[in-house]
Amino acid sequence: MKTNTIFLSPDEMPRQWYNILADIKMNPPLGPDGKPVTPEMLAPVFPMNLIEQEVSTERWITIPDEVMNIYSIWRPSPLIRAVNFEKALGTPAKIYYKNESVSPAGSHKPNTAVPQAYYNKVFGIKKLTTETGAGQWGSALSFACSQIGLECKIYMVRISFDQKPYRKAQMQAWGGKCVASPSNETNAGRAILAKDPNTPGSLGIAISEAVEAAVSDTTGQTRYALGSVLNHVMLHQTVIGLEAKKQLEKTGDYPDIVIGCAGGGSNFAGIAFPFVSDKMHGKKVEIYPVEPIACPTLTRGPFVYDHGDTARYTPLLAMHSLGHAFVPPPVHAGGLRYHGMSPIVSQLVTENLLTPKAVSQIDAFKAGVLFARTEGMIPAPESNHAIAQVVIEANRAKETGEKKVILFNLSGHGLLDLGSYEKYFANELDNYAISDEDLAKSEAVFKDFPKPQLLKSI
Amino acid sequence: MKTNTIFLSPDEMPRQWYNILADIKMNPPLGPDGKPVTPEMLAPVFPMNLIEQEVSTERWITIPDEVMNIYSIWRPSPLIRAVNFEKALGTPAKIYYKNESVSPAGSHKPNTAVPQAYYNKVFGIKKLTTETGAGQWGSALSFACSQIGLECKIYMVRISFDQKPYRKAQMQAWGGKCVASPSNETNAGRAILAKDPNTPGSLGIAISEAVEAAVSDTTGQTRYALGSVLNHVMLHQTVIGLEAKKQLEKTGDYPDIVIGCAGGGSNFAGIAFPFVSDKMHGKKVEIYPVEPIACPTLTRGPFVYDHGDTARYTPLLAMHSLGHAFVPPPVHAGGLRYHGMSPIVSQLVTENLLTPKAVSQIDAFKAGVLFARTEGMIPAPESNHAIAQVVIEANRAKETGEKKVILFNLSGHGLLDLGSYEKYFANELDNYAISDEDLAKSEAVFKDFPKPQLLKSI
Repeated sequence: MKTNTIFLSPDEMPRQWYNILADIKMNPPLGPDGKPVTPEMLAPVFPMNLIEQEVSTERWITIPDEVMNIYSIWRPSPLIRAVNFEKALGTPAKIYYKNESVSPAGSHKPNTAVPQAYYNKVFGIKKLTTETGAGQWGSALSFACSQIGLECKIYMVRISFDQKPYRKAQMQAWGGKCVASPSNETNAGRAILAKDPNTPGSLGIAISEAVEAAVSDTTGQTRYALGSVLNHVMLHQTVIGLEAKKQLEKTGDYPDIVIGCAGGGSNFAGIAFPFVSDKMHGKKVEIYPVEPIACPTLTRGPFVYDHGDTARYTPLLAMHSLGHAFVPPPVHAGGLRYHGMSPIVSQLVTENLLTPKAVSQIDAFKAGVLFARTEGMIPAPESNHAIAQVVIEANRAKETGEKKVILFNLSGHGLLDLGSYEKYFANELDNYAISDEDLAKSEAVFKDFPKPQLLKSI
Repeated sequence: MKTNTIFLSPDEMPRQWYNILADIKMNPPLGPDGKPVTPEMLAPVFPMNLIEQEVSTERWITIPDEVMNIYSIWRPSPLIRAVNFEKALGTPAKIYYKNESVSPAGSHKPNTAVPQAYYNKVFGIKKLTTETGAGQWGSALSFACSQIGLECKIYMVRISFDQKPYRKAQMQAWGGKCVASPSNETNAGRAILAKDPNTPGSLGIAISEAVEAAVSDTTGQTRYALGSVLNHVMLHQTVIGLEAKKQLEKTGDYPDIVIGCAGGGSNFAGIAFPFVSDKMHGKKVEIYPVEPIACPTLTRGPFVYDHGDTARYTPLLAMHSLGHAFVPPPVHAGGLRYHGMSPIVSQLVTENLLTPKAVSQIDAFKAGVLFARTEGMIPAPESNHAIAQVVIEANRAKETGEKKVILFNLSGHGLLDLGSYEKYFANELDNYAISDEDLAKSEAVFKDFPKPQLLKSI
């Protein structure tokens, strides 16, 4: 039978994650004293086995059997040739996409939620805390904890908690306990509520509450989990790109261009890093992280030392940043509303191994709707940004007549984001382009911090 | 790698649907004069190629290549051994489920929406009209029309239109035009709005509008499409059971019990009919359609001639019915809120080939939440009814120690129904058991209609 889907059998699944820290040098995270942080300083927040993984430079790290078993609920995920989308664009390019929307939580997030829950369990932890904005990460961690057997507590930004009751119910269906943040359950939350009882909350506040809840459990059996940015999160996501490489091998194609949307960087890293490694070893391939013009961390933010959170609880990370005080405009791609970027992705940009792109919210939805009408899947608003860049590349190939092979990551479906599509159809979306003055103001917060070195690994 | 999923390769996909009309006798649909309806009478509503399929008694009907190509977006669907669910129930039974939630629309409905759109297109039709209650069928038909290249117009029951904006946006993402019913676009709609401008609408009204919109297009290029009940709909859904049989063969198991939820009967027919055929030919297997106690068509309604719609536009169908005036209580499984039942499923019940069951709404959600927490998928409220019966059978196996093999159909996911889960968690659900008096009153509407014969095919 003719099919546009390139399947992998379960036996062909990658059994190891690819650790790109084997290939590159990195500026270390710095503590409040300006010196590199030690593993011990992170021990109250993360379990030691994950801290070790965070700094490991082993090239291949074996995926534990229990994680493989849970991955098998939805993995290997399909690689699909977007034939109808190609036809609609009239392009000679071949467009392939990796469909990460097939997980129970509907995105790539469970790829790291499951191993994070697993390593915590192995370390003897009973409960995980986390924050969530729009709800993708909170629901993925709830799913993972239900599979592994951990309690899960999620601090969800108040405005999203009220606007998106479906997400809360989804977490609850998997046994996760979700409260609106700021809450009355933490010192951080109570302090903010005392000042402003009607605050809509923020990711920065929610992180503060989740970290406080983890470190203040006197039994020592609670830890905090993060869904992006950190090295071990990028590591776990490489299963996406490793599968995609095997699937592409079956077609005889190798990508000229690899594309993923980038907020904290995790789905992008997942599809891209195995190809970045090829590129370092001489292969010719263009690799584009795509962000919203409303939050242009890689395209307009400098490579600096800055905090990962608004409240400055985290170490200083060497990364592209718009400043930890930057509040991104309310674009519907909630997963791309982050002031900073994965330090590894940032380092690869400084080495010119990646070429960042930015697209507007309206172009993103326009591309996403064309994709839905031709390929059948309704993409998440985040994924629409990758698709908009695919459209640009496909149109360029049409002009030049080049038969480019384009691979992109469909990071998630948009079924719990259909409200944003409704606003698109009603012409109620804004692009939220931001001014140089606003950026300069936001970036002022890190001007006195140490400067990272411009390392070259290759 | 260990996996609980039994895959089929695309080459192993069934190339034909199974037509159970080759095995059984049926009472014919009757017109207003009490005589069997002719194909010509249905020609303004359906294209003649589908009308021919509706009455065909060919045992195997080839799936057109273009339909196969679109099926390949999500088919073959996975068959999964629910190992974690078995463990949580402590049952010796083996539980397998066919996961129909993997389609772009999130349910089994595209299995018939795609061929219906295809046959209309081949017949020269440009546009399809339909009704939708909660939105599953309307979104499936929108998806199918976007793939095949037809216009699609959906009349959505007003109260659902207002309560479930996500469904409307989903249809729109695929290019479907969805209006609240009653609308100002049809005589039927205008007449009702004139009497009651604030009416919440009903499926009966929406059907009237969709049929009127189809037959009143003077170009003759518009037809109406129905998502359940009719013979050709059941036929298309048999791809579910045919795939499941092939997948089960790989495990060496054959089901002792086959279970599906039943509203109009289509997902149930899909999983069950290939096994019903085996049973007719001597195989030992129990087959249970499961309905809500709030709408007990098969378990408490008689086998009679009745209309398929409230407004009495359809022919008289020989089926189990609670009376065409019956308004089912507002259970959240909108797809199971139908007064009648597929005539084929009804006929098979009169022949004792099927054993209908009914479960309460609260038991259904309780079972669905256990399933979500163990297997990872959040089921549709409709599917929860099948799962509740699986729990009953698994517990019985636990008591008797029998290693029963249970197969059920997961007809769809519950991501656009999470509001109902929220009500379950808040203890706000009602079971809506109904009284004998209410049923007797509803059933009075067909007391003067002709009586169907109690046929025995085998």
